[in-house]
Amino acid sequence: MNLKIVSYFLGWVLLIEAIAMVIPLVIALALGESSWIWFLVSIGAVLIPGLLLSRKKMRTGNFFVREGYVATALGWIVLSLMGTLPFILSGKIPRFVDALFEITSGFTTTGASILNDVEELGYGLLFWRSFSHWLGGMGVLVLILAVLPMSGGYNMQVMKAESPGPSVSKLVPRVSDTAKVLYLIYLGLTVMAIISYMITGMPVFDAVCIGVGTAGTGGFAVRATGLNGYSSASQTMITIFMLLFGVNFNVYYLILRKKFRDALKSEEVRVYLAIFTLVVITLTILLKNTTYQEQPFYYSLHHTAFTTASLLTSTGFGTVDFVEWPAIGQTILMMVMFCGACAVSTGGGIKVSRMLILVKEGLNEIHLLIHPKAVRAVRLDGKTVESDVVRSINRYMVLYAMIFVISVFVVSFDGYDFHTNFSAVLTTLNNMGPGFSRIGPTSNFAEFSDLSKLVLTFDMLAGRLELIPMVMLFYKQAWSRHF
Amino acid sequence: MNLKIVSYFLGWVLLIEAIAMVIPLVIALALGESSWIWFLVSIGAVLIPGLLLSRKKMRTGNFFVREGYVATALGWIVLSLMGTLPFILSGKIPRFVDALFEITSGFTTTGASILNDVEELGYGLLFWRSFSHWLGGMGVLVLILAVLPMSGGYNMQVMKAESPGPSVSKLVPRVSDTAKVLYLIYLGLTVMAIISYMITGMPVFDAVCIGVGTAGTGGFAVRATGLNGYSSASQTMITIFMLLFGVNFNVYYLILRKKFRDALKSEEVRVYLAIFTLVVITLTILLKNTTYQEQPFYYSLHHTAFTTASLLTSTGFGTVDFVEWPAIGQTILMMVMFCGACAVSTGGGIKVSRMLILVKEGLNEIHLLIHPKAVRAVRLDGKTVESDVVRSINRYMVLYAMIFVISVFVVSFDGYDFHTNFSAVLTTLNNMGPGFSRIGPTSNFAEFSDLSKLVLTFDMLAGRLELIPMVMLFYKQAWSRHF
Repeated sequence: MNLKIVSYFLGWVLLIEAIAMVIPLVIALALGESSWIWFLVSIGAVLIPGLLLSRKKMRTGNFFVREGYVATALGWIVLSLMGTLPFILSGKIPRFVDALFEITSGFTTTGASILNDVEELGYGLLFWRSFSHWLGGMGVLVLILAVLPMSGGYNMQVMKAESPGPSVSKLVPRVSDTAKVLYLIYLGLTVMAIISYMITGMPVFDAVCIGVGTAGTGGFAVRATGLNGYSSASQTMITIFMLLFGVNFNVYYLILRKKFRDALKSEEVRVYLAIFTLVVITLTILLKNTTYQEQPFYYSLHHTAFTTASLLTSTGFGTVDFVEWPAIGQTILMMVMFCGACAVSTGGGIKVSRMLILVKEGLNEIHLLIHPKAVRAVRLDGKTVESDVVRSINRYMVLYAMIFVISVFVVSFDGYDFHTNFSAVLTTLNNMGPGFSRIGPTSNFAEFSDLSKLVLTFDMLAGRLELIPMVMLFYKQAWSRHF
Repeated sequence: MNLKIVSYFLGWVLLIEAIAMVIPLVIALALGESSWIWFLVSIGAVLIPGLLLSRKKMRTGNFFVREGYVATALGWIVLSLMGTLPFILSGKIPRFVDALFEITSGFTTTGASILNDVEELGYGLLFWRSFSHWLGGMGVLVLILAVLPMSGGYNMQVMKAESPGPSVSKLVPRVSDTAKVLYLIYLGLTVMAIISYMITGMPVFDAVCIGVGTAGTGGFAVRATGLNGYSSASQTMITIFMLLFGVNFNVYYLILRKKFRDALKSEEVRVYLAIFTLVVITLTILLKNTTYQEQPFYYSLHHTAFTTASLLTSTGFGTVDFVEWPAIGQTILMMVMFCGACAVSTGGGIKVSRMLILVKEGLNEIHLLIHPKAVRAVRLDGKTVESDVVRSINRYMVLYAMIFVISVFVVSFDGYDFHTNFSAVLTTLNNMGPGFSRIGPTSNFAEFSDLSKLVLTFDMLAGRLELIPMVMLFYKQAWSRHF
């Protein structure tokens, strides 16, 4: 293990966190909130180790896959640990485990909360909480790659470890340029979202917080009423932008380069939009005939579209309590949750492309049983999916199932019903937010024991980093000095 | 598709079913039950097509993997369809969908029932219901291989399709001899079970029915009181034999050949017994401190051992209602259900060896990430697991997940709670028997809609035949004449 480079990365993670904390500091100061002093103290506590660790200029050394994964995993853990400071110091979330759950939920863009009344936090802390979605959405280490003049193989390893999806495709030859392009698209779309929300009547502070939340596909609200206080037009805008942030960003890059035909060809995005359309039609008809019988047709369509976009992209915003929906509707939502958004988006879940490759591989294998001598590789977007990508997906699914089962096991000790435990793990591992039964959209995670909260916090990190980096931390050989 | 050989196999399946029906006919006649006439009619209805189809002596022709799978899948469907006749004709289970669910549950050794009072059936039908477990346990087509003088590649294909587990190992060079050895061990153990039950005080009829049920790891009881009417000693005997029938039969063959050292080395059996021991200890302590606080320690141990053996081997017999257990206990049981028994046993589930290989492969892949140039294959029992076995397991898991999700989706239309729907699919797909919530050990499947019953019937067949054969029926190319 090349600890020098890993700690250099950790230093930069802390520096970026310190810079990010300046914004809530300014907000608190401007609005005369007492929490500004705690942001100042936090910045100091984050900045000093950050400066110390990042001081030593990095020399190109051994930086392999494992360094990339370990740096990413530790980076996110450090980010989350330090991110708790403003909550703990201000006394708004005094308990460490609760604060860790809350801010990890923020960075991983999960949006599951332990708070009963978010408005008690005040504007500074509310912004910090929502802004963590934005930082985590596209990735803090990818941001480092975008802003630091670095080159070498390690860039690619970090990119691999932090970017969502079964494989990383470089948009442009240099990894750091790819990171820049991704962040520029991200920033552009975020600004568009915020402006759209303001135009449809959202207060400026809300528009910014919900805007960065939508961008990261997080799900933290900033009002005790959730998203119900906003106009229908605003809610529709949120639906549209949730969907947009779940699209594979490579498609936006193709659109920017005016390669419209290539953009339209993306199988993943087409399946993603097909799933969305199909689920919305099914649920609208279902709900118009059951739960929302008394309401106009538009009501059913509006909330179904919002909920589907929210859960498919793993954002987790809610306008209605879907725990009241019929069982079949809830099952459909749960399937949507598992699926997740596109690769190379800010959304969570297993990802549409992974699902696509898995299903294609399954069908392929049956074909091979019938035609044992046939040679047929899995294809996506007309290109052959390399066999190590297929293997990495199988590995991902095995780890996913293992972490899922162990987590449900531990959470069961709290004694809640199976639907609660199952959906608590599902919603954190897929970076979703709300679950079913006792943790539906109108409830929160406060009642869980500390042990369960820690396990679910781990699941959020494992889900965001797509399992391998977090699992590798437990693998003794990843730490050995020898190779 | 070589339809001639497939229909020859179907003919023999029907002949064996007709012969099997003679036993309940004799029982009904001897006890003066009116149902004998319906068994006679059923035998006629099964025998005639059986004789017609099996008349043409089979010539060795094209018989490849797909023929093996299709013959097996169709064989089981025909077996189940014809097996409903005594129930429908006698009017005891007048509705076709119900009768099909019940007898498929029998042949697939699931043991899930739609009956409220089993004693109403009478001895003849009760025996037919329990005996179906025995016929399905080791496999009807394997029985054909054992009794028919056949040779050629097709033997192996059929063996592959019907035998449980990730790979088929021939105990002896000839497939038909392997089938004979398996059936002799099966028969010997069954006789031992029946005698043990009688010695511990069970009535002869019950001992035979519960004996063949234990052997096939089915789970049909023959009394309205389930297994509660039998002595503690009998229940303990059932626990032991359930465990024994979940052991990989290859181990018994090694013991018979006095290769004790090799027998002890079986990793799968050791892990299987370790899981059993660990779960029993955990649950005993848990229950002694919760649900069974008022009862002596022995009570908790006794029922925990029985329930664990029953669910691990997918038998599904019950002495207590585990739906009353604490949430963590139910979660542990659900994990045990997923796991299942050993390969080459009569038990269902995903199988211990498959789980073992999956976990080993997962760890291997992480190792490969750290040491990209390492060459390390998955090993079991000290032997390298061939890569096509590993692939077939991945294929199995993908199909398993797909069938699971689609089934839960359809069953959800009935409007029951998630725990009920989830466990209904889990229990049928793993050939278990009881589920949780509304379909616990003291309830039954009668309330489900016809559509759900048909889907669950499909799941039972898919689970017993380990997915591929049933899935292949839907694959158009499997039916093409050309290759």
